[in-house]
Amino acid sequence: MSTESMSELGQQLRVDSVRCSAAAGSGHPTSSMSAADLMAVLLDGGFLQMDTDDLGNPANDHLIFSKGHASPLYYAVLKAAGIIDDAELLTFRKLDSRLEGHPTPRIPPTDVATGSLGQGLPIAVGVALAGAKLDRLPYRVWCLCGDSEMAEGSIWEAFEHAAFNGLDNLTAIIDVNRLGQTRETMVGWDLDRYVHRAEAFGWNAIAIDGHDVDAIAFAFGEAVATTGKPTVIVAQTKKGKGVRAVEDQPGKHGKPLDDAEAAIAELGGERELEVRIAAPEAGEPHVFSASGGELPTWELGDEEATRKAYGAALTALGAMRGDVVALDGEVSNSTHSEMFREAHEERYFEMFIAEQQMVAAAVGMQVRGWVPFASTFAAFLSRAYDFVRMAAVSQADIRLSGSHAGVSIGEDGPSQMALEDIASFRAINGSTVLHPSDANQTAKLVAAMADRKGISFIRTLRGKTEVRTPPDEDVAIGGSRVVRDGDDIAIVACGITVDQAFAAAETLAGEGIDARVIDAYSVKPIDAETLRSAARDCGAIVTVEDHAPEGGLGDAVLEALAEADDRPPVRKLAVRGVPTSGTPDELLHWAGIDADGIADAVRSMVRERVG
Amino acid sequence: MSTESMSELGQQLRVDSVRCSAAAGSGHPTSSMSAADLMAVLLDGGFLQMDTDDLGNPANDHLIFSKGHASPLYYAVLKAAGIIDDAELLTFRKLDSRLEGHPTPRIPPTDVATGSLGQGLPIAVGVALAGAKLDRLPYRVWCLCGDSEMAEGSIWEAFEHAAFNGLDNLTAIIDVNRLGQTRETMVGWDLDRYVHRAEAFGWNAIAIDGHDVDAIAFAFGEAVATTGKPTVIVAQTKKGKGVRAVEDQPGKHGKPLDDAEAAIAELGGERELEVRIAAPEAGEPHVFSASGGELPTWELGDEEATRKAYGAALTALGAMRGDVVALDGEVSNSTHSEMFREAHEERYFEMFIAEQQMVAAAVGMQVRGWVPFASTFAAFLSRAYDFVRMAAVSQADIRLSGSHAGVSIGEDGPSQMALEDIASFRAINGSTVLHPSDANQTAKLVAAMADRKGISFIRTLRGKTEVRTPPDEDVAIGGSRVVRDGDDIAIVACGITVDQAFAAAETLAGEGIDARVIDAYSVKPIDAETLRSAARDCGAIVTVEDHAPEGGLGDAVLEALAEADDRPPVRKLAVRGVPTSGTPDELLHWAGIDADGIADAVRSMVRERVG
Repeated sequence: MSTESMSELGQQLRVDSVRCSAAAGSGHPTSSMSAADLMAVLLDGGFLQMDTDDLGNPANDHLIFSKGHASPLYYAVLKAAGIIDDAELLTFRKLDSRLEGHPTPRIPPTDVATGSLGQGLPIAVGVALAGAKLDRLPYRVWCLCGDSEMAEGSIWEAFEHAAFNGLDNLTAIIDVNRLGQTRETMVGWDLDRYVHRAEAFGWNAIAIDGHDVDAIAFAFGEAVATTGKPTVIVAQTKKGKGVRAVEDQPGKHGKPLDDAEAAIAELGGERELEVRIAAPEAGEPHVFSASGGELPTWELGDEEATRKAYGAALTALGAMRGDVVALDGEVSNSTHSEMFREAHEERYFEMFIAEQQMVAAAVGMQVRGWVPFASTFAAFLSRAYDFVRMAAVSQADIRLSGSHAGVSIGEDGPSQMALEDIASFRAINGSTVLHPSDANQTAKLVAAMADRKGISFIRTLRGKTEVRTPPDEDVAIGGSRVVRDGDDIAIVACGITVDQAFAAAETLAGEGIDARVIDAYSVKPIDAETLRSAARDCGAIVTVEDHAPEGGLGDAVLEALAEADDRPPVRKLAVRGVPTSGTPDELLHWAGIDADGIADAVRSMVRERVG
Repeated sequence: MSTESMSELGQQLRVDSVRCSAAAGSGHPTSSMSAADLMAVLLDGGFLQMDTDDLGNPANDHLIFSKGHASPLYYAVLKAAGIIDDAELLTFRKLDSRLEGHPTPRIPPTDVATGSLGQGLPIAVGVALAGAKLDRLPYRVWCLCGDSEMAEGSIWEAFEHAAFNGLDNLTAIIDVNRLGQTRETMVGWDLDRYVHRAEAFGWNAIAIDGHDVDAIAFAFGEAVATTGKPTVIVAQTKKGKGVRAVEDQPGKHGKPLDDAEAAIAELGGERELEVRIAAPEAGEPHVFSASGGELPTWELGDEEATRKAYGAALTALGAMRGDVVALDGEVSNSTHSEMFREAHEERYFEMFIAEQQMVAAAVGMQVRGWVPFASTFAAFLSRAYDFVRMAAVSQADIRLSGSHAGVSIGEDGPSQMALEDIASFRAINGSTVLHPSDANQTAKLVAAMADRKGISFIRTLRGKTEVRTPPDEDVAIGGSRVVRDGDDIAIVACGITVDQAFAAAETLAGEGIDARVIDAYSVKPIDAETLRSAARDCGAIVTVEDHAPEGGLGDAVLEALAEADDRPPVRKLAVRGVPTSGTPDELLHWAGIDADGIADAVRSMVRERVG
């Protein structure tokens, strides 16, 4: 490491950013050039510690590009570190290349996908939490942020949580190149404003010239030496640095340089520097001992809220497995994750009212192999929807529990009622959507989620429901249960509406209508076979859900039967209109999804078939 | 106004908070009691200016409870102001009461629903922006925040935007009662930390004892007198103030007091104070003149991107109507709202990379009757999903434009591709979901959105598509167009897949398969009649969308046919799996939603019917 070698490496990173963007015909070279010196010092200065021969080494540092559009720089870094070769660098943005337009885990050692701004830093907080509190290893998390993304509120959630948790293993680097996509940012080059904000949020903050490699090295050194709090390096830079045609110019965002060859020449031409990245000291992650035990069960006929069964099951799972961790958005006495906190305090993370940071932390923890379950009201998981969307792109394995589903919560009113959650989670690639109707189902599904890949979501109820599932009955993702047999019509329900459907079926039996009741506790994947049998045996289907009519259980049933041999008419009962306050019973009735509403729908469909 | 009268009013507000929560059997009296003195001074001190005989008076101040769970206090305020009577106060949380568990616009003068924390302040910023930049009236916006919700990133988006826009007509009041739902907040009673943060974000900040009515009055006076920047009053309070059994006690969140009668006695008993709220000076909102003109049209066969047609149509609409305003998340040269900015700069709001604040600002502006259109990449609207959800509860009329839909954006990769947007927007109560396939459709739908109630979403494309809709053809919300007639099978497409479906149909015609192609540009409401005709005439249906399989066009088609007389098999073609980078054509092919994929699906379905 010398001033000259770091500067030379910075130029190489610029040249390679220009080259791969030119080869792709698209990309963000100018946003890469501003941060090139920062990354050159991180590598050549020996600050980043990573075993490039073993990218899965648990002792490795983590490097997260929160400004994912600076992917040309990221890939140039990987080349300089010997992780990819020049030929692969030039496959940037092409089909089948591991080097996508924005980084994804398809190219190791990339932990997570970035490109939706403001997400990398909150995820970095999650990785740093894992390092400090779970793995208990000294690895560092380095996170490169753009200045435009400092306008995202999620960034400030991350600042608060990192300081609150004393994460001195986290270093954020803000590339203050002043220029956003169309104009100057709100802060521009007023570095002091970033410094004051960061300090007010409890960080150590260092303002530097982001093109002065010695200053950068000094700042990184201070970051490493600072204990008890995270450090942010606020680096004044120039977008497009080093090439007059684009340097600090507006209108040069997100496009290759007009004359790449001239730019490369101006930058001093191609270089073939390869940096031997410093390897970390060996270390093994901490393992939490499992005390054993088994999942809780409830007796048939017991009354219990599925949210409480969630808490009990998660707590038992935490005793059975040392890798399970829990996070909550400061409603742990509502979601009942408090039971886990009481039993496994070291593996519980209070994320306060910051749902974006909560989901991001879960994503960060699973990067290191932990098995996170994050809970809040299902309605408030919508706050983190972009994080869930991106978690799927990251191929992350996270488990989310949303309580207080639907109008059945009652008096608190519509702001607290999840009515769009099944639809939004179903649309996430590779997701699992579960909505158990009783405590025994809940416990078994929670256990199944721990081994599930991708995004799993379990929706729980505020009120108690009767336990109808025998403790020893098989309950599995993709399954369902036939609560009541019958061949005249099938009623497909889930969650709170199972009780209502059963009651309706009992009433209808007295009228000579024999209704089959199916509890579709696994909404995605749904038990298509059971539904197709019902379609074959019964002349009509009623679906009933405490959810909006679109994208929920009803649509899942229609999808399962879309190409089936038997396609009876399907009537979807769901919540239409904005609910108000009221008792759970009043609101279920208002929505037409109580036993009365179901029975009416069945009668009407049976009449139509006869008529 | 006197120290004594303000203190007495504060006690009344506490007593009424306790009383209505007791009557309801639920609610948040302790979170109300902490802020009672703050509200008493706001009313009795003459700071809040509102014509209570004309709650729609445009000159009125606005009072937004960002901590919506303090609804008992809010309703106690309305009673003290003579807006509701005591009998109505005691209907709190009952079915059919206007006084829901969290405030909603069902009870005037409530502007918006709150109860999802961290939303009231960003919406208040929107109302304040309307006051300063659109209405140009001196009304003030008063926003009561909880300290727990300061952990939401959206709060800091609001802080940044309020200061950047110099909103001295906005006063935030933080009720720092220290205690969240389950524990102390991260900041506790360290008022200086809030002050430093607020100052670092550009606000005037005043720390006070929130139970000292004279100090409160002084602070409100300073807020009103401060120019050029917003003011935040950081008020140290005690949760449950005034009743020993709950004051500053943990475990007392969100439940009525155990002994309401004793508490009322301790608070000095019921009072019947009524405050004559100060009326504002009369004032009329500014009107932007409309210069006229008409919507743009394109000739058949032209090639244009629908995002560009969006920009052109919105700009024309802005000339035709003075009430239309535009907001963008710093991607205006991608969404093409930049055209509106250039033409109508005074009605354009740059919201930078802060999608939550963007949607909240739109909600705030429509409170005052403006017609906001907010745009960003459709993928990034997912960042504001909870705000959209709550906007529906607020019965807000907002229009959202999401560009760069689906895999057809190509090289940028999955982080930038909206694939869940149709599903998530369809599930919003009363929403409208539009996905035009060409420029002429886009322009007409943009105009229709301006008059549409509720949440309307238009999804636009990055790449150009051929104009197939004649300039004079009727295009309406709820409509569709038959692009090609045929009776063997129906292909239902929207957006980018219409071109692909048409090409597939042309190929299939050469093979003796006569496919009907339907352009379902209105996904919600969908043109059920046209789909039912297709179901009757054609033996099978293929749906094809650049979106996830769940909750999108395919599910909308299935829903439309769920109870139809004719229910042919429906095959849904959609994006299954996580996309990568690639060219648009490569990715459409990879997803099986290009002409080849469609033709294959049709052939297979036709074979199955014959076989």
